[in-house]
Amino acid sequence: MASWLQVPKNSPFSLANIPFGIISAQNASRVPAIAVGDHALNLKSFASNGGFSQLPEIQQHLGVFEQQTLNAFAELGRPIHRQVREYLQNVFRADTQFPQILKDNVALQKSALLPLSEVTNHVPMQIGDYTDFYAGLNHAYNVGVLFRGPENALQPNYKHLPVAYHGRASSVVPSGTPLHRPQGQILANPAANPKLPTFSPCKRLDIELELAAFISKPNDLGKPVSIHEAEDHIFGVVLMNDWSARDIQAWEYVPLGPFNAKNFGTTITPWVVLLDALEPFRTVGLEPGNRDSLLPYLREKRAENAYEIPLEVELTNQGGQPTLISRSNAHNLLYSFSQMVAHHTITGCNLRSGDLLGSGTISGKEPKTEGSLLEQTNGKTPIKLADGSERLFLEDGDTVVLRGMAGTEGNYVGFGDCVGTILPAVPL
Amino acid sequence: MASWLQVPKNSPFSLANIPFGIISAQNASRVPAIAVGDHALNLKSFASNGGFSQLPEIQQHLGVFEQQTLNAFAELGRPIHRQVREYLQNVFRADTQFPQILKDNVALQKSALLPLSEVTNHVPMQIGDYTDFYAGLNHAYNVGVLFRGPENALQPNYKHLPVAYHGRASSVVPSGTPLHRPQGQILANPAANPKLPTFSPCKRLDIELELAAFISKPNDLGKPVSIHEAEDHIFGVVLMNDWSARDIQAWEYVPLGPFNAKNFGTTITPWVVLLDALEPFRTVGLEPGNRDSLLPYLREKRAENAYEIPLEVELTNQGGQPTLISRSNAHNLLYSFSQMVAHHTITGCNLRSGDLLGSGTISGKEPKTEGSLLEQTNGKTPIKLADGSERLFLEDGDTVVLRGMAGTEGNYVGFGDCVGTILPAVPL
Repeated sequence: MASWLQVPKNSPFSLANIPFGIISAQNASRVPAIAVGDHALNLKSFASNGGFSQLPEIQQHLGVFEQQTLNAFAELGRPIHRQVREYLQNVFRADTQFPQILKDNVALQKSALLPLSEVTNHVPMQIGDYTDFYAGLNHAYNVGVLFRGPENALQPNYKHLPVAYHGRASSVVPSGTPLHRPQGQILANPAANPKLPTFSPCKRLDIELELAAFISKPNDLGKPVSIHEAEDHIFGVVLMNDWSARDIQAWEYVPLGPFNAKNFGTTITPWVVLLDALEPFRTVGLEPGNRDSLLPYLREKRAENAYEIPLEVELTNQGGQPTLISRSNAHNLLYSFSQMVAHHTITGCNLRSGDLLGSGTISGKEPKTEGSLLEQTNGKTPIKLADGSERLFLEDGDTVVLRGMAGTEGNYVGFGDCVGTILPAVPL
Repeated sequence: MASWLQVPKNSPFSLANIPFGIISAQNASRVPAIAVGDHALNLKSFASNGGFSQLPEIQQHLGVFEQQTLNAFAELGRPIHRQVREYLQNVFRADTQFPQILKDNVALQKSALLPLSEVTNHVPMQIGDYTDFYAGLNHAYNVGVLFRGPENALQPNYKHLPVAYHGRASSVVPSGTPLHRPQGQILANPAANPKLPTFSPCKRLDIELELAAFISKPNDLGKPVSIHEAEDHIFGVVLMNDWSARDIQAWEYVPLGPFNAKNFGTTITPWVVLLDALEPFRTVGLEPGNRDSLLPYLREKRAENAYEIPLEVELTNQGGQPTLISRSNAHNLLYSFSQMVAHHTITGCNLRSGDLLGSGTISGKEPKTEGSLLEQTNGKTPIKLADGSERLFLEDGDTVVLRGMAGTEGNYVGFGDCVGTILPAVPL
């Protein structure tokens, strides 16, 4: 799909993608937008200047493009998202049916088409609740081996349900937001003194490479979402770094799970890639989605319950060069987002538009495919960076970039960079 | 404090209280209100008809009473809450300084003063995140004994930090909302088959008697709230029933904590009792708040870190009579809400106005003071109800009422009833 707009061949935002986000330019207020190549299209300007005049189905809903989050647009449902995405692909195609809309409309280009370098990205939806799943089987296994040995690495429930915990919505931040090293209670020397905590900045600060899905259509309290309808409740997907303070976690997590170890920040890419854009990359995850061993409420109609999306983790130390420390793939998941929605709501729990569901850490099976430092170093075997320095966990000044991009040159469907830099702990 | 309005002597909403809530009457929209005796005062009507004309400090903030949640009012901060509460006490006092405002203003009484029986209560704040702590030491001990025996009942971290997990905000409902019995994966016969789950309605449905605090003043990401300033971030307190599906929980909770076992509903009383109203009932909790064994970021200046508030749990089976099944007291907590705020934010986690912090289950040490059925019956020793029927856990049609009221007759400071009825599981 060629465009009249110059779209770099290696851009994650080819015409095959058309992800949605919330931007602001200079001091203007937040507006919905899409990303195309190196540009953002301001959908508020576009809509108010007749940009959607050739799409009758959206006319009564144009108010959604005047909102400061994507929640209202998401709630319109997947058929509308599909029409809007296909229409915008058409508008940007070299052989567009509607050249008068934007291709030949220099005035609208000037007012609505902005270089990505000149806009600020924001968390695209008002997140009601954020839930983090644990569907990365290889990660669960690797961490289980460290804590319980290979015999008992996976808990008995693991292959029967998508394990999850409630996460912290307030501290979900957009890519590029620096985060202070968290501090809290840790065991300074667990072997010598396993029961007396010390107050300290986190010494085992880690990343977790995840995908995350935003909910579009809500469900009422008491009304579970069927596995066969779950996909219609999912708006799209982003990349997520679930920063984790391993030492705080190890001390605090019994018996109710991680809390302060995760609540200080979670970074997401700001462009939501719609499920329709990912559809060509559907594949079978670590086990088929229609496997008989699942209880019926989790059994999908088809086997393909994951996406073929190469992922990578890059670490750059302050003043250093980027080092690619891991390559994984989104197919390394045991459960789909549909299965997560079905499980999450089976009790009657209500999901709202904008709720965020993390996949869990996506690790491969081979060395250098792990989605966390804990798995790669176990706090013992350092990673070598480009300039020769070593890392067991993150140091102050380190910048981590997650990337994910499906498809082929010129037609990539990607998320853009998920970037975060670690600042020193704040003096109390 | 006598009122010109008839206030029943046993009302939880005496003039010593003045709790804030969100009500709607008939088909009107939601408005802020206070409760006095058997009445609600519509603060939107009151404000727009000059009700606050004798309180200069609130004039520039009157817009908060036009909101559909209490978030904006809460964000004004404790000094304003105090002035508004004291002013409203004055307005309702028999010897009010301002008789022209309401006492002698029959027109405003007619438009703004509504019988509680004629209004609908709503969740009073937009809850960003809901966090549930585990500060009820006796509960943690009792449950620990059941799972791990008396030697290891409390985890090593328990007396060093207020253990917590993130809860589900979307399904927090106001008192009176019926809830369907949740369904999901349980082990039908754990002894015989500890690794193969069955799909079933929950068979061990339980309650948890808790207090919960709403956050008023937010803190920025990366800026911990000092223990000495934490109280200024707390708006007020409600009673909470953290319904729990014990069998779903037992199967799902390793290794990340409770999820589906708790996400189907959490019931709160709709009237927020301000900290100032509770101040006369401050007392030392299970251990002093200034104990040396705490790390400094959790150590309070004074010992009094809890409230003396008698609590009770009543269970009524369908067609039966109410049975008082437990009496406890809010002093049965190891940590204060201030300590919870200090711990929650020590990593830099940001709290927002409207965030909800549950205390954890409040159990006494004696029989019949437990805050959950699990502790009282262990699924083995039934509770006898008034009509002779027995309960290990909740049956369909059961109604549970939590109550809590401090003070003495005529001057009670209480929460009102926290009511929930269990409906049958929804057929899939």
